Amino acid sequence: MSEPTLLVLDTAPSPRLGRLTGRARIRYTDGAGLAARLPEADVLLVWDFASDAVRAAWPGEGPRPAWVHTASAGVDRLLCPELIASDTVLTNARGIFERPVAEYVTALMLAFAKDLPGTLDLQQRRQWRHRESGTLANSRAVVVGAGPIGREIARLLMPLGVKVALVGRTARRTVHGPEDLDRLAALADWVICAAPLTEATRGLFDARFFGLMQPSARFVNVGRGPVVVEEDLADALRKRWIAGAALDVFEQEPLGPTSPLWDVPDLIVSPHMSGDTVGWRDRLGEQFVAMYELWLAGSPLPNVVDKRRGYAPFPGPGE
Amino acid sequence: MSEPTLLVLDTAPSPRLGRLTGRARIRYTDGAGLAARLPEADVLLVWDFASDAVRAAWPGEGPRPAWVHTASAGVDRLLCPELIASDTVLTNARGIFERPVAEYVTALMLAFAKDLPGTLDLQQRRQWRHRESGTLANSRAVVVGAGPIGREIARLLMPLGVKVALVGRTARRTVHGPEDLDRLAALADWVICAAPLTEATRGLFDARFFGLMQPSARFVNVGRGPVVVEEDLADALRKRWIAGAALDVFEQEPLGPTSPLWDVPDLIVSPHMSGDTVGWRDRLGEQFVAMYELWLAGSPLPNVVDKRRGYAPFPGPGE
Repeated sequence: MSEPTLLVLDTAPSPRLGRLTGRARIRYTDGAGLAARLPEADVLLVWDFASDAVRAAWPGEGPRPAWVHTASAGVDRLLCPELIASDTVLTNARGIFERPVAEYVTALMLAFAKDLPGTLDLQQRRQWRHRESGTLANSRAVVVGAGPIGREIARLLMPLGVKVALVGRTARRTVHGPEDLDRLAALADWVICAAPLTEATRGLFDARFFGLMQPSARFVNVGRGPVVVEEDLADALRKRWIAGAALDVFEQEPLGPTSPLWDVPDLIVSPHMSGDTVGWRDRLGEQFVAMYELWLAGSPLPNVVDKRRGYAPFPGPGE
Repeated sequence: MSEPTLLVLDTAPSPRLGRLTGRARIRYTDGAGLAARLPEADVLLVWDFASDAVRAAWPGEGPRPAWVHTASAGVDRLLCPELIASDTVLTNARGIFERPVAEYVTALMLAFAKDLPGTLDLQQRRQWRHRESGTLANSRAVVVGAGPIGREIARLLMPLGVKVALVGRTARRTVHGPEDLDRLAALADWVICAAPLTEATRGLFDARFFGLMQPSARFVNVGRGPVVVEEDLADALRKRWIAGAALDVFEQEPLGPTSPLWDVPDLIVSPHMSGDTVGWRDRLGEQFVAMYELWLAGSPLPNVVDKRRGYAPFPGPGE
């Protein structure tokens, strides 16, 4: 049997792919070259997950790969009607980002509770100003997004004494449905967004939503930028409808130097880094290699995305 | 029976003391007036725990209170040979500060791991610069001080996947003795000081100690300032012997505006606030009121300090 062709969207993926030598004909392409090379690919590895190239190239002419894997948790940048309607299997990088993102969210919440930004600012001005701080213990968090990342956030927060409510697409045993979100958010000290970008979540966090949060509450987004109406969040912070917010994801990434978000009061802006801990590219490479070996052997793949819903259901089929 | 005289060192303690109306003749004094009023006191409540007035006034003439309570965990500022040798019972505020301090330490560790200071600095400069961050999961921490605060730090860190070694004054079942400190510190990603200030801990963290830590490791002090040789720590940071440090306590408090510590690289300076969460003064007042009621009833007091060791042993007698 001849080697399958593995097309990689990006120029410099993890060295771990070298392990596939002799089992894959590996070809690299940038976004501009994707449309021309897509027909020859048996498998497409979307290493540059911030690119819109797949959504742009997919509707073109010719055969399409049987399997597409993205080195990310979210799949919103890939999906187009033609990919959704096709027989192509789409998988994501579930298992890599959960713990890092959960630690990052915990870091932000503790930084807010202890006013670390205020401490660092006072330090720069050489001012000793004792303040009373808040606690995570006995506070209430609503985590929107009940997939593996949302669940891991809950798992880290609960031993810290945070009372966590998970909100997902549909109510189930330990998960609230969207119909409970307003009621829960109105009582919460923290609203954490770890939701995928879908038509159900786009623009979910808007002026109406921030208006029903408590003035002492804080909002954190580690999901996808367009889930938040950024202007509404900036307004809510300026008017002190809520006490603080942190955004790690944005409508436009990277955030340009002229964005008004950089200096909104009580807003922490970070460069989409919550899941990216030292060694993450190697772990993504290792994960793909293991999945490729399953695929070669004809075994079922894990992390299969429900293309119509726009995320990998958890638990997946047979898990 | 006439009311006992309760002398309070400070001018504005918790309103909760009002509950003792009719059961205590409450008198207030500042540090300057303490020596003159000490002989009339049955009980001394050290509300201004940052004052050295007790140590200064105690050796004077006249009777001394049977019981001294301090609204703090550490007792180093009170102890003098005459108080140690006396029959006076000394108690501390064990139970109030453990969880807040443990949350604060966790906040600092996560802020270092995720480079939150770097993120806030880049935000001020409107720069989007993605970085890979560290994790708490599977890192190693040595917590020096195996009292209630050190144990609570360990209790919060362990569910985050941190491997914690506790070091106390003497080796016991789950605690290492001081003889293990160097070996543990050389392998650690984090060294956390939650130790009382005693003759055994004064100057414990010096150039020799920082020299044996890993260059990637960080040091946090939430115990007492003089446990650290501040110049040596500043030097170790400037020479990159270690990757970062946070001090919440100092040899001199408040830290003056001319202190060189404010701008040591990779050092976070905070104003002795780790244990002071909203409502802490009320909780300290409630704790004292409950203890005063035990004392009035002739019941044994909790939180009794071993004056010769310089801290309240945990667990205490009969606990």
